[in-house]
Amino acid sequence: MSDNKGKRTDPVVQPSTRERILASTLSLFNQKGPEAVTTAEIAKAVQINQGNLYYHFRTKESLVLALFSRFEADALALVKEADAVEGADSKAYAGFLRKWFSLVWIHRFLFRDIPGLLAIAPGLRAPILMVSGGMRLSVDVIFQRMEDADLINVAAEDRKTLLTNMWIVSTYWAVYLGLQEGVHDLGPQHVHWGLSQVASLLRPYLSPKARADLEAMLSELFT
Amino acid sequence: MSDNKGKRTDPVVQPSTRERILASTLSLFNQKGPEAVTTAEIAKAVQINQGNLYYHFRTKESLVLALFSRFEADALALVKEADAVEGADSKAYAGFLRKWFSLVWIHRFLFRDIPGLLAIAPGLRAPILMVSGGMRLSVDVIFQRMEDADLINVAAEDRKTLLTNMWIVSTYWAVYLGLQEGVHDLGPQHVHWGLSQVASLLRPYLSPKARADLEAMLSELFT
Repeated sequence: MSDNKGKRTDPVVQPSTRERILASTLSLFNQKGPEAVTTAEIAKAVQINQGNLYYHFRTKESLVLALFSRFEADALALVKEADAVEGADSKAYAGFLRKWFSLVWIHRFLFRDIPGLLAIAPGLRAPILMVSGGMRLSVDVIFQRMEDADLINVAAEDRKTLLTNMWIVSTYWAVYLGLQEGVHDLGPQHVHWGLSQVASLLRPYLSPKARADLEAMLSELFT
Repeated sequence: MSDNKGKRTDPVVQPSTRERILASTLSLFNQKGPEAVTTAEIAKAVQINQGNLYYHFRTKESLVLALFSRFEADALALVKEADAVEGADSKAYAGFLRKWFSLVWIHRFLFRDIPGLLAIAPGLRAPILMVSGGMRLSVDVIFQRMEDADLINVAAEDRKTLLTNMWIVSTYWAVYLGLQEGVHDLGPQHVHWGLSQVASLLRPYLSPKARADLEAMLSELFT
């Protein structure tokens, strides 16, 4: 909703080489997976020589880590935004889930093969734990507010289990699609599928109002 | 419940070398993960020389595949057993879930890092799809019987989503524990945790009787 234009551009109008490298890398990683993309390919896409690429990013791991910190920054901004949501606004809560999946979609290479990604970028382990911890805390707070506003009803002893299942499904749905359904080239319809899988975990616990807002959110398509 | 003694022993009383190799390999794979176990280590554990090991299993992949076919045979036997369950016997359905997790526990190395395992044993992809397809079909049949016996109430349009979430959680809970909680050495308590996560997916849809049987099953400890 807010105007984020220029949020990440440098003082000069032209995007910096670093920016252009990251944009091309993200696009190539999403298309082919980080293990299949060579630095030669990235340099070619950015139209720079490999020496210049190497000057900015010495390893594939540093590229993965730089892209992850963008994801992290966006995820933390989302958490902050969610913190400002009014107690009874179930539309906003449904929107939160949707925005999370939009982030997942933009950085979808991060979710396709997490153990494989950690093999390329072992330094990713700590940041992943940070983001997941932050998101979990945030969703827990949201649950409490929804509980207080009678939008959701989860027995106290079931909440932790539910949160964990939400985390497992929202992290591994793409790995599942790859392994079980042979889907390696994720399209918007797959992200929508993942979102529906996570939403269905909540459905039995929602009030009629919150459920209607969830269904309305799910009926919008990803583009 | 049935007496399975001697199910897999050869006509001679002594277990064959092949059997002993598989038993030691399973134990080492479960302890350390297949990528960390060397053939020298396996030969040492079986007290044979490496040439003899090589005579039985030429590659680590063939060991993984042989162990997987045991898992597969046991899983199919479980499916068959479930097929014989009486319609209204919710204890038996809860038992089915528990037996599935006992199988998972025995072959836990298969679940800890599935993409990593496929890197060692690409031939595993097809058998995994076979077992998962068979299990899914079987759980779908069980759902229908439970539905007919008023033990569960899942709207027709939600059933597929629920089955998929059960599959995702029961496949990736151990990967999740490894990555998010740093648990690499799975103990019986972790398998119980995984079982509880999957059981909680069903809970909102169960009748009071079926729920009570589920809770009773969960209160038993894995040993």
